[in-house]
Amino acid sequence: MDNLAAVLHGPMDLRLEKIKLPDMGEHDVLLAVGSVGICGSDLKYWKSGQCGRFTVTQPMVIGHEASGTVVKAGPAVTNLKPGDRVAVEPGVPCRNCKVCRHGRYNLCPDVKFCATPPVDGNICRFYSHPADFCFKLPDHVTLDQGAMLEPLAVAVYSCRRADVTSGSTILICGAGPVGVLCMMVARSAGAASILITDIDDHRLNVAKSLGADHVIKVTTSDPEELANQIEETLGTKPDASFECSGTDFSMATSVYATHPGGSVMMIGRGSAKPEVPLNLAAMREIDIKGINRYANCYPTALSLVESGQVDVTTLITHHFPITETVRAFQTAVTPESRAVKVMIHCDQ
Amino acid sequence: MDNLAAVLHGPMDLRLEKIKLPDMGEHDVLLAVGSVGICGSDLKYWKSGQCGRFTVTQPMVIGHEASGTVVKAGPAVTNLKPGDRVAVEPGVPCRNCKVCRHGRYNLCPDVKFCATPPVDGNICRFYSHPADFCFKLPDHVTLDQGAMLEPLAVAVYSCRRADVTSGSTILICGAGPVGVLCMMVARSAGAASILITDIDDHRLNVAKSLGADHVIKVTTSDPEELANQIEETLGTKPDASFECSGTDFSMATSVYATHPGGSVMMIGRGSAKPEVPLNLAAMREIDIKGINRYANCYPTALSLVESGQVDVTTLITHHFPITETVRAFQTAVTPESRAVKVMIHCDQ
Amino acid sequence: MDNLAAVLHGPMDLRLEKIKLPDMGEHDVLLAVGSVGICGSDLKYWKSGQCGRFTVTQPMVIGHEASGTVVKAGPAVTNLKPGDRVAVEPGVPCRNCKVCRHGRYNLCPDVKFCATPPVDGNICRFYSHPADFCFKLPDHVTLDQGAMLEPLAVAVYSCRRADVTSGSTILICGAGPVGVLCMMVARSAGAASILITDIDDHRLNVAKSLGADHVIKVTTSDPEELANQIEETLGTKPDASFECSGTDFSMATSVYATHPGGSVMMIGRGSAKPEVPLNLAAMREIDIKGINRYANCYPTALSLVESGQVDVTTLITHHFPITETVRAFQTAVTPESRAVKVMIHCDQ
Amino acid sequence: MDNLAAVLHGPMDLRLEKIKLPDMGEHDVLLAVGSVGICGSDLKYWKSGQCGRFTVTQPMVIGHEASGTVVKAGPAVTNLKPGDRVAVEPGVPCRNCKVCRHGRYNLCPDVKFCATPPVDGNICRFYSHPADFCFKLPDHVTLDQGAMLEPLAVAVYSCRRADVTSGSTILICGAGPVGVLCMMVARSAGAASILITDIDDHRLNVAKSLGADHVIKVTTSDPEELANQIEETLGTKPDASFECSGTDFSMATSVYATHPGGSVMMIGRGSAKPEVPLNLAAMREIDIKGINRYANCYPTALSLVESGQVDVTTLITHHFPITETVRAFQTAVTPESRAVKVMIHCDQ
Repeated sequence: MDNLAAVLHGPMDLRLEKIKLPDMGEHDVLLAVGSVGICGSDLKYWKSGQCGRFTVTQPMVIGHEASGTVVKAGPAVTNLKPGDRVAVEPGVPCRNCKVCRHGRYNLCPDVKFCATPPVDGNICRFYSHPADFCFKLPDHVTLDQGAMLEPLAVAVYSCRRADVTSGSTILICGAGPVGVLCMMVARSAGAASILITDIDDHRLNVAKSLGADHVIKVTTSDPEELANQIEETLGTKPDASFECSGTDFSMATSVYATHPGGSVMMIGRGSAKPEVPLNLAAMREIDIKGINRYANCYPTALSLVESGQVDVTTLITHHFPITETVRAFQTAVTPESRAVKVMIHCDQ
Repeated sequence: MDNLAAVLHGPMDLRLEKIKLPDMGEHDVLLAVGSVGICGSDLKYWKSGQCGRFTVTQPMVIGHEASGTVVKAGPAVTNLKPGDRVAVEPGVPCRNCKVCRHGRYNLCPDVKFCATPPVDGNICRFYSHPADFCFKLPDHVTLDQGAMLEPLAVAVYSCRRADVTSGSTILICGAGPVGVLCMMVARSAGAASILITDIDDHRLNVAKSLGADHVIKVTTSDPEELANQIEETLGTKPDASFECSGTDFSMATSVYATHPGGSVMMIGRGSAKPEVPLNLAAMREIDIKGINRYANCYPTALSLVESGQVDVTTLITHHFPITETVRAFQTAVTPESRAVKVMIHCDQ
Repeated sequence: MDNLAAVLHGPMDLRLEKIKLPDMGEHDVLLAVGSVGICGSDLKYWKSGQCGRFTVTQPMVIGHEASGTVVKAGPAVTNLKPGDRVAVEPGVPCRNCKVCRHGRYNLCPDVKFCATPPVDGNICRFYSHPADFCFKLPDHVTLDQGAMLEPLAVAVYSCRRADVTSGSTILICGAGPVGVLCMMVARSAGAASILITDIDDHRLNVAKSLGADHVIKVTTSDPEELANQIEETLGTKPDASFECSGTDFSMATSVYATHPGGSVMMIGRGSAKPEVPLNLAAMREIDIKGINRYANCYPTALSLVESGQVDVTTLITHHFPITETVRAFQTAVTPESRAVKVMIHCDQ
Repeated sequence: MDNLAAVLHGPMDLRLEKIKLPDMGEHDVLLAVGSVGICGSDLKYWKSGQCGRFTVTQPMVIGHEASGTVVKAGPAVTNLKPGDRVAVEPGVPCRNCKVCRHGRYNLCPDVKFCATPPVDGNICRFYSHPADFCFKLPDHVTLDQGAMLEPLAVAVYSCRRADVTSGSTILICGAGPVGVLCMMVARSAGAASILITDIDDHRLNVAKSLGADHVIKVTTSDPEELANQIEETLGTKPDASFECSGTDFSMATSVYATHPGGSVMMIGRGSAKPEVPLNLAAMREIDIKGINRYANCYPTALSLVESGQVDVTTLITHHFPITETVRAFQTAVTPESRAVKVMIHCDQ
């Protein structure tokens, strides 16, 4: 079995190469990888060799939004067997430290996360992973849907941390894949009214067609003005705001816009020290909460897909076989392609 | 303006009488009552003159699930004007005591609740109420829907106290109006899998048609056996169980059935000291939480109806004008009528 | 009865004047004011005529940390009688709006707060207040202690919002009255290890003598360096950090210092848009939570004083009769006076 | 090295025997056991061969409240080295299942807990344990104190689940070791007023001397009468009640006594289906919460001992060398011995 893989050697240097078959521990499963979605962080690594505080210093297999089919199960595996189709939760924590024991394993300092240097990702033919971080897909859930559980888990976690519940009024800044998934999960969690902002008409149209109650195209550069517009449109200040655009402007807008006692979720990543009216946030007791990936969200994400509460397939706009991974990355970064989620098929 | 009212004088002694127009404070609105639903507690008062620790000792207007139209607004009222259609939150707390200040005003020892002796209810032509406990209905929400906000608020509160959220697995014992509303609200809050039990095929069919994933007709008298059947059907123990049948058997079933770390919501009222495996609940850290009406739930209930997330009209099976209130009560207690919610129209 | 009062007419224009006796509603008590502490916000109004978004535009009685003795009780008052000594919770909310009903009455947009323009405060001989926002002092609690409940309530609220509990490790930036009170309340709530920073040796010595486990005198201008020093001293990152100094430097330090998953409490008020590493906070899921005064904290504050868990009298360094209010304010702003809390006695 | 151990062969059949040295995994440490406290569950196993749903069906080393000194550390151990003195958290979960990942590892169905059949305990000379479930004791904390962390962790967990905080009013039913430890932890967490009930004068005197504000000797058989007496003594209903006596009477008393909106903690274990006024609890929204051991409490328990906030040594009334284990057990069950905590020294 040849193991073709998309290996990132440095900025803009992504190569299709044969790598050795992965090692397998007794608690691991060997997977024939199915679908892998391309994420914004993958694109950052590709373009610049780094993302946040991480830098690619040695060749690394890229990709972390994966699904696959079990080829072989380690001797200690009890939950999976060959032939099972699974979604892969890409971050495996140490299971033993203080944060792991408290249930916040996403904050584990020793977490190994696919395609976060120096850990290899899974745009490849064969990949092994701890079986208990693989989630079996029911027959009617596709491998594409399985791959989508990763960004969906981000949205699930964000809504959970924001206490979205029946009747919530929600602002989402940024109508990219994460923003739209947050909208879908918020809706499925009972949100009564959701407003999305973006600078791009096409994205707003997509968001509207997928269920946004209100959309606002951002044209002003004054966050207070936009916040007023949001309040007028919603008829109230939102209970929680989700910053998904990665801009400081949207962080500021979120604070101005949110109802006293509410939350601003910092999901995108803008500048290191964004200019945000924190004093106002304090006075209004608007809590600023960031997220670092997710914990305990794959089962929920799967149930949302399985039950049909969230339709993730509408976000998949492009498909490529693994052999065309580079072209897939190029498509993902080209605005004209209007890509939302680009999917790579490692079984093609 | 004659004020015709349904006045309960004692067990089985419900009379249509003219009463005086209500007094109005400066913060009150005078309402022309529209629709009033009949609740299980109304039926208990009618049949026995008492419900729980309350006894009817003087003539009392019955009914507390009401909507209406503002006829006159007190001078200090700012949120409503004549012509506005509203839902009436029937319990008005003191606003000043410890529990009121903490936001749990439903536990206020001085709460005045419609048709809880000696406070008059609102099956009558004209009724006055504090304006801030009246919630304006949008044009597309009917007075019938407005009246349904009361039992819906019970379901909203129950789901909130049970932490129902995306992906939750839910057991509901009892497919009466409250059980079915809990199901609907749980679904709108993201519940992935809901199982309802009852002893009545018709009720289960209704529940199934309104969205239950699974129904079980209770035939055993062994709660552990039923709990096992529930786990097999769901494929897991439920995260939360809602006891809505008012039977000790269902309380016991709920405890046996619930997942460790989950909650049993005690919504129905069985015997004073039901035989429940509390020791097992403690060992599994299954919290037993009751509810006493609701607090801060009308806005949410209204948003669920307004947005179409919950369709309460499907539960309304019978309609009567106020002049036929007694027949309405008779219908509500007659099993053959297959009544779910009986609505009295005080404007007819 | 002459009603002498300290009336602020504008920046640096504080005059002792006779004012009329206050109006009294049926739910109010008339108080002979006892002790009133001077707060930082009082000093800001005195020095500049403004504090935050509020400006003194008409003469206003200053002072809001008050205690007193009931002279007369309105006809509807049931909890107090003449002769009772009370602490005065200075902010009276509307009791009816959304946030009031949810128990977060400190966020009420219509709150009336003593000595926040245009509402009069209580450095005066006679003052009336709603009886249910007056808390009866036991015999062994002094009027000075009663006045101290106000800043103590801030500390109680901050610890509550920060989830301080048994075993917590705490950082407090700023050893002024609020910082020291936060320290005391955190200790009484079980905090195992508390470190305080300040730029002033004297304040740090006071904090040390009152129970701080560790103190660090800030000499660096690099918040990351200070954060490292804090971690080394504590042996771990703190679970929660309390910014009580009102400086942007301390906000940044707090974020760098806090344990992943912890909280930074924004209690002081620095610049409107402080330069804070929010991106890092998001990655570590350190929640940024501000406070706006307090809600439901007076009973707790009183119990801490009454039981001796917190000794507030150690913070009172200076005493003045009401007739020397201006000198009291001068003392409070003079560093050489080493004032922690200056108390004005309106009964002298 | 001979490994002398206290092996339970069946009811009342506890033998001192030499057993083989324990196996050690790479993440384990080998301990020379120091102190081991005798717990009520140990006594149940000794007297009847069973406790709750567990039965001794093969010889089992008894004891689970242990401390010791590291003799040897497995190759993968990083946090401990030979010579370190540690407290042993006796329950080791699977680390991988749903509840483990959510931070509630005490509910792990595969937990291995010392001296819960068929897992051996640690009244023996040498014992091995996963290093990350051993907590290093500072120099000034004794091995006796280290052993006491186990029951102290129960109290920490109970107070945490009950949300005990500054100003809480607390009822504790049962002045045995767990009740008294709950009192101490509640106090250290800010409880303002604590009342303890028991049927035994001596226990109440101990509780009083260790800090109870109020004690009531139970003489009535009517739980409502006792509840009234408790409310009169406290001047209010308690915010939380801790049932630590293992009697149904105290469970009923706790429900009658607790403030609406409060919690009843079910810590002791009475009959399987105690007669408790659950209907009243529901009406008052008093949540019934049990506990199953504890999770994430050893670090807190250690900090309370280390900082001197809780003095556990006052509860240790008797000491025996391991060779006199049977006499130690006899002492523990003999009322006349007035034993609170009996400590066995495995290093003697």
